[in-house]
Amino acid sequence: MSVPSRAYTLEEMTSRLGGTPVGGENVRIEQVASLSSAGPRDIAFLASARYAQQLVDTRAGAVIVNAAAAGHCGNRPHVITDDPYLYFARVSQLLNPPPPLTPGVHATATSFAAEVGAAACIDAHAYVAPGVVIGADVVIGPGCWIGAGATIGDGSRLVARVSVYPGCRIGRRALIHAGAVIGADGFGFARTPQKSWEKIPQIGVVVVGDDVEIGANTSIDRGALDDTIIEDGVKLDNQIQIGHNCVIGAHTAMAGCVGVAGSTRIGKRCQIGGAAMILGHLSIADDTVISAGSMVAKSISRAGHYTGWVPAQAHADWLRNFAHIRHLEAMADKLRRLESRLAELEKKGD
Amino acid sequence: MSVPSRAYTLEEMTSRLGGTPVGGENVRIEQVASLSSAGPRDIAFLASARYAQQLVDTRAGAVIVNAAAAGHCGNRPHVITDDPYLYFARVSQLLNPPPPLTPGVHATATSFAAEVGAAACIDAHAYVAPGVVIGADVVIGPGCWIGAGATIGDGSRLVARVSVYPGCRIGRRALIHAGAVIGADGFGFARTPQKSWEKIPQIGVVVVGDDVEIGANTSIDRGALDDTIIEDGVKLDNQIQIGHNCVIGAHTAMAGCVGVAGSTRIGKRCQIGGAAMILGHLSIADDTVISAGSMVAKSISRAGHYTGWVPAQAHADWLRNFAHIRHLEAMADKLRRLESRLAELEKKGD
Amino acid sequence: MSVPSRAYTLEEMTSRLGGTPVGGENVRIEQVASLSSAGPRDIAFLASARYAQQLVDTRAGAVIVNAAAAGHCGNRPHVITDDPYLYFARVSQLLNPPPPLTPGVHATATSFAAEVGAAACIDAHAYVAPGVVIGADVVIGPGCWIGAGATIGDGSRLVARVSVYPGCRIGRRALIHAGAVIGADGFGFARTPQKSWEKIPQIGVVVVGDDVEIGANTSIDRGALDDTIIEDGVKLDNQIQIGHNCVIGAHTAMAGCVGVAGSTRIGKRCQIGGAAMILGHLSIADDTVISAGSMVAKSISRAGHYTGWVPAQAHADWLRNFAHIRHLEAMADKLRRLESRLAELEKKGD
Repeated sequence: MSVPSRAYTLEEMTSRLGGTPVGGENVRIEQVASLSSAGPRDIAFLASARYAQQLVDTRAGAVIVNAAAAGHCGNRPHVITDDPYLYFARVSQLLNPPPPLTPGVHATATSFAAEVGAAACIDAHAYVAPGVVIGADVVIGPGCWIGAGATIGDGSRLVARVSVYPGCRIGRRALIHAGAVIGADGFGFARTPQKSWEKIPQIGVVVVGDDVEIGANTSIDRGALDDTIIEDGVKLDNQIQIGHNCVIGAHTAMAGCVGVAGSTRIGKRCQIGGAAMILGHLSIADDTVISAGSMVAKSISRAGHYTGWVPAQAHADWLRNFAHIRHLEAMADKLRRLESRLAELEKKGD
Repeated sequence: MSVPSRAYTLEEMTSRLGGTPVGGENVRIEQVASLSSAGPRDIAFLASARYAQQLVDTRAGAVIVNAAAAGHCGNRPHVITDDPYLYFARVSQLLNPPPPLTPGVHATATSFAAEVGAAACIDAHAYVAPGVVIGADVVIGPGCWIGAGATIGDGSRLVARVSVYPGCRIGRRALIHAGAVIGADGFGFARTPQKSWEKIPQIGVVVVGDDVEIGANTSIDRGALDDTIIEDGVKLDNQIQIGHNCVIGAHTAMAGCVGVAGSTRIGKRCQIGGAAMILGHLSIADDTVISAGSMVAKSISRAGHYTGWVPAQAHADWLRNFAHIRHLEAMADKLRRLESRLAELEKKGD
Repeated sequence: MSVPSRAYTLEEMTSRLGGTPVGGENVRIEQVASLSSAGPRDIAFLASARYAQQLVDTRAGAVIVNAAAAGHCGNRPHVITDDPYLYFARVSQLLNPPPPLTPGVHATATSFAAEVGAAACIDAHAYVAPGVVIGADVVIGPGCWIGAGATIGDGSRLVARVSVYPGCRIGRRALIHAGAVIGADGFGFARTPQKSWEKIPQIGVVVVGDDVEIGANTSIDRGALDDTIIEDGVKLDNQIQIGHNCVIGAHTAMAGCVGVAGSTRIGKRCQIGGAAMILGHLSIADDTVISAGSMVAKSISRAGHYTGWVPAQAHADWLRNFAHIRHLEAMADKLRRLESRLAELEKKGD
């Protein structure tokens, strides 16, 4: 994966990506690296002028800095840009293009696709059911299953062993990792008088917008009646569960192990920390930040940063302290009673 | 998925499913829908007479109501039944039968099955090991792996990319979603004096009853010595982990992301909320309800509703409040001391 | 799975595994079992002399005991050893060897491997990309995907449907369960001024040591720049998420559903309970024990046992008590004020 595709001068780089090159006429950059591990063919970045000391020791062939830090670069070739981290991301994309693929349907794949776009690749042991529409430059990786009537937009890549259930629609430039399951049945049952469960067929689908990334072994359920919606630019990490009929707003990012129960609407540009759990039928405002491990049980109508979990402590301390957590109300009562007794005494004393 | 199979009159519907049809001689119902999105060929349901106002605005061709709400239907065709939601589930099943399948072994599948029942389908790239017994009307979907000697009961459907380890037994009419893994090794190791781990072979299997649904990317481990048991009618959502030697009682339902550690016995008809975590070697009474996100660390001998988690709050408030959670015991001590000092003062004052 | 491979006398057993055989010249042991379910051809173990009463009732053909318990065995054949549970693990391994496999590449598999060791098996519908190096006695199970340039060490077994991304390196004698994903992209994005996300290519890999077990549907992300490291002897249960650039120290064990965010270093020989969540960029000392369900948000520099979660209680009690958890600071303030008012009164009273 770290085989360089080709080498770039700072001039070539900045002519494609913007930024101001300083020096480096004879430098050829092949790869990105951290300041501490970079070598003479690598470019690194400095997040902030505060860490400028690190510029002294790095062996990087060039660095990406903001204007404030540029003065600390000495003779080292550098690129000046407003947001070095963002620039670094784009340089890395330039230096690490996706691996080239062989278009066409692999001999071991089974495809009944209704339409397959130009340069699309359906790789080994993939199964594409009837009625599927596959856009241009799509990669259906080894062992993927695409159910009947699903659509996969231009430039999307399903890495390997991805399942897309019938009727689901994936937008353009999706990146979906191994083991992800898009469109399995939502968890919908009616209880019988005998307390068994009667299945409610899940007749909605999953609709995924453009530029969405979905992590390994993540599951997104199809809608019960209406659809489950993942809007443009959403980024989902691994092992996430999205219940039926959720709407995840554009450019929201969720870290690993998050669970969102059914029919919850999460706003745009939210950031949901790992293993956070969001109950069903809630509405979360745009631009909300939820800390990792937090349990959200009520709607959030105002953007902000919300948290709720117990910090780990030494087990013996936890045992002692958490003996009292079951008695918080009793404690509050005791406090109230003490207060009134004290007030009584104070009155007497007057 | 929302392609209607055929249209039904209320008369045809009620002659199959029970309930009393009122009006609707000329109505042909093709699909279920919510009151708000239904059109003239859809049937919707009213959960309770309290929401009867919604009956006024809906465009549904017919509605399902209980006797109390029937008076609010006006001229709208309706079906009267005791439990509209349950009835709705059954109507939806009638209108949305499973997709038809082509029986037989797909050309790309590999099957060494010992027995394959009538009309069973072993789909593309599935692998069925020697000694497997497959019942009638079973679907082994694309990319499934069925290990040696496993059995799959009549009418079961493994949607795609399901793994069933050797020797596991799945009952009748199971529905198992993509990515589920049934029968991987339980997590069993003995520690050596050098603090490395010696594997304990997991020689039990998983036994799954009838009418069980298992969600996407859910894992159920095989037993260490005895078996892991999933009883009839259990419904498991996605991303669930069931440890070795657990017994999950009949008709228990678990929402997504639940974890149950090894050797725990969960009663019948329990409801376990999403991301709840149940420790090992516990026993949970029949009909217990566990709230989402709760941690259960002790056995529960009496049915009831149990909860334990921290509600998320504004981060700044949480920081302030949870600085004290590590000091609950100190707080309780302080309270006790204040109380005795106050009692002392009160005595003096007398 | 419980088909015995062959029968052993205690003499044969102890000559391979150590321990002192007592009696049992005519006993042939075929399988391991618990004391309560064992029959005359089974061997069971007694964890501690405290439970010696169980020796009276068992029907086991032989038992494994420590020296302290040996006196309670009566005429029953037994093996004396320091650690009966560890010995039991080794006996079970002897009695339950892995199933025999047919070396070679299955007709339905697709392999472009650069090197395949002796007696290796690439099973049905597996896909092995160019440049992959597969060691001796390796099993690439049905439906596995091994990306370009990956290496799989001698004696490793990928059971079925395992994904190994390009360039990742798996050591010797690994056991990797169905649905595991090794080397998907870490969750790395830079935010644009428009609040969308720019992907940071993940150019590190995953490096897995020797004797590692990885559970079903567990995901381990590749590194962003440097690699993600799983050291020798690590045991990971199911449904675990390991973020990019983590280092998991040798012989650390993690139970199911654990999440470890990116760039965290976990020490050697740690034990992490199920569903524990460890934030990113932390360092956890060797030999640390984290209770199930705990949230770790700070580095742990001293080995010990750490815990942080809320015990479930009856829902009504929880509602009452947790109304106050949002007001712990107010409670602490009130306590402080009461204390000073009381001190004031006490002074007056003097």
